Amino acid sequence: MAIRRIAVIPGDGIGKEVVPAGIGVLDAAAAAFDLDLEYEYFDYASADYYVEHGKMLPDGWFEELRPFDAIYFGAVGWPEVVPDHISLWGSLLQFRRHFDQYVNLRPIRLMPGVTSPLAGREVGDIDFYVVRENTEGEYTDLGGRMFAGTERETVIQETVMSRIGVDRILKYAFELAETRPKRHLTSATKSNGISISMPYWDERVAAMASHHPTVDVDSYHIDILTANFVLHPDWFDVVVASNLFGDILSDLGPAIAGTIGIAPSGNINPEGLFPSLFEPVHGSAPGIAGKNVANPIGQIWSGSMMLDHLGEPEAARTVLTAVENVLARGGAALTADMGGTSGTDELGRIIADEV
Amino acid sequence: MAIRRIAVIPGDGIGKEVVPAGIGVLDAAAAAFDLDLEYEYFDYASADYYVEHGKMLPDGWFEELRPFDAIYFGAVGWPEVVPDHISLWGSLLQFRRHFDQYVNLRPIRLMPGVTSPLAGREVGDIDFYVVRENTEGEYTDLGGRMFAGTERETVIQETVMSRIGVDRILKYAFELAETRPKRHLTSATKSNGISISMPYWDERVAAMASHHPTVDVDSYHIDILTANFVLHPDWFDVVVASNLFGDILSDLGPAIAGTIGIAPSGNINPEGLFPSLFEPVHGSAPGIAGKNVANPIGQIWSGSMMLDHLGEPEAARTVLTAVENVLARGGAALTADMGGTSGTDELGRIIADEV
Ligand SMILES: CC(C)[C@H](C(=O)O)[C@@H](O)C(=O)O
Ligand SMILES: CC(C)[C@H](C(=O)O)[C@@H](O)C(=O)O
Repeated sequence: MAIRRIAVIPGDGIGKEVVPAGIGVLDAAAAAFDLDLEYEYFDYASADYYVEHGKMLPDGWFEELRPFDAIYFGAVGWPEVVPDHISLWGSLLQFRRHFDQYVNLRPIRLMPGVTSPLAGREVGDIDFYVVRENTEGEYTDLGGRMFAGTERETVIQETVMSRIGVDRILKYAFELAETRPKRHLTSATKSNGISISMPYWDERVAAMASHHPTVDVDSYHIDILTANFVLHPDWFDVVVASNLFGDILSDLGPAIAGTIGIAPSGNINPEGLFPSLFEPVHGSAPGIAGKNVANPIGQIWSGSMMLDHLGEPEAARTVLTAVENVLARGGAALTADMGGTSGTDELGRIIADEV
Repeated sequence: MAIRRIAVIPGDGIGKEVVPAGIGVLDAAAAAFDLDLEYEYFDYASADYYVEHGKMLPDGWFEELRPFDAIYFGAVGWPEVVPDHISLWGSLLQFRRHFDQYVNLRPIRLMPGVTSPLAGREVGDIDFYVVRENTEGEYTDLGGRMFAGTERETVIQETVMSRIGVDRILKYAFELAETRPKRHLTSATKSNGISISMPYWDERVAAMASHHPTVDVDSYHIDILTANFVLHPDWFDVVVASNLFGDILSDLGPAIAGTIGIAPSGNINPEGLFPSLFEPVHGSAPGIAGKNVANPIGQIWSGSMMLDHLGEPEAARTVLTAVENVLARGGAALTADMGGTSGTDELGRIIADEV
């Protein structure tokens, strides 16, 4: 059994609480499936590290993290100490870019025992993927400010889309759609208002569609698409989107599926040239940090995605089933946000036991 | 009684059906309140016009429309004939920009008789405004394409925010918040990922907040904000956003309030230097056009906003009350999308009679 080396980065806030819960479940899966998971912990990508060193990451982070098989990440951000754009651009967004994790994969699924805020939606009605481009698009630090501090002050921010970048995320999404029974792909656009980048996106979708004739493709402008997530969540199967639109849809998606607190994500380099990174969709949640009340399920489910990525689909499924079973039983075992009485650590142990 | 000159532009698709219904209601309000509304119809800003003339607007449109007191607009877009970015940039977006309609005001209100897709939400639970910047931001035609047609193809799209543009929309939103009992303003940002324009937006929000100390201000990143629209719609009072974020929030807003079909909007030049434009939030809906099934309430409610803007708040309120009464009674009087059996024209007449 090959050793899997995992870099563990708890980060800030509730990241430090949900990561240990997630590790407990990974340990249980490792024991059950005889896996050899080896963890190494890193304290950087955190506000504490920033306060001490004046930067989010040490100089050698790339070489240090690169040999790992995966990165298990909590959350970053502590705006009281570091402005968000500095903490995020200084850490998570660097990982995504330098490790070329160009796919951000986010399952949107109404889980058993979870109540959707949408009236009358049951398990099975909401079950799709958001595939988000994760390295370029609207997230850039290109641009600048002119006439600073005056009435004429003007700021420019540039969006960059490359054929390489757009085509590879579309290819991943089309191929994912081909593995699904409905073979249905929805593209998020805004080509009626954003008149250069989004028509280009549409053009590449059309080109990619011609190579995947069995996939049923449609396209919505992002405004009406968010409305349709609420009005018709059952319409969707695989939704592919640019960095910003994917960011929006993958928070809205978990919301319609009940809660952001349990949603997982993978930042994936499909070619395996660099480590992929797995993290919950929620952030560091300063408001509830340090109280042992955070819901660890997003972190645990992200662990399941990581096991799948590491070539252990059975272990991955077992973790996900354990989560589903515990959610379906409900009651006191859950954390307070779901009406239970467990602390973060306790719910982690309950799911680990279930595994 | 001063004459009010209104330019009527039905545009495309269901625009041509809902505009007459809206005019019928305006006529009823004019009769009831002894108003002198004078209409002039224009066939441009439509695909038909484009097919005949190779452009969306005639050369003299600016001088022609400028003297009007307001523009009553249906919808534009017919992608089978003209790509959306051409039809929209060639018409509606020109009006917004050249007539400096820098406020896009969109009430989000759960109306009596309408069912929200959100479980357990009642009339009164959802009642807020989205104030959208309407002239700059992410909607530009600045940028270009390099290495076209090759593997190295790269596209750049620029977002532009100016102090003038940002400050005036914030001022409008803060002043609107000051008229509301809760005096609560929410800013939509994404300064953790979009690292030049959105931190600038945040900076200007902070500056404007310091001049409006009685307004209670908060700020959410657009991703979690869309989630909160679904999870906590009762949190919001006045939401201010950039052009793109406002576009998204003002489609998502009507969706949580039941349907896009009835939502209105005003594209407003608050100083009255140019005509303001009133239009439903929905588009031209090619799929249902020409069938007399479109819901005219978005167009009618937009007429109410126009009356208010023209300095006739009583007539405006009467139209809105008529809409509310007809919605509250429900049943066959409504269009099929709301479970009724009326055609577009018939529902228009019913609301006109109610006025
Ligand atoms: C049609 C489109 C360009 C327009 C926009 O994005 O502004 C529409 O969605 C709107 O909200 O008025
Ligand atoms: C924290 C932030 C920069 C990040 C993003 O926008 O990508 C987060 O919202 C996410 O979705 O992972």
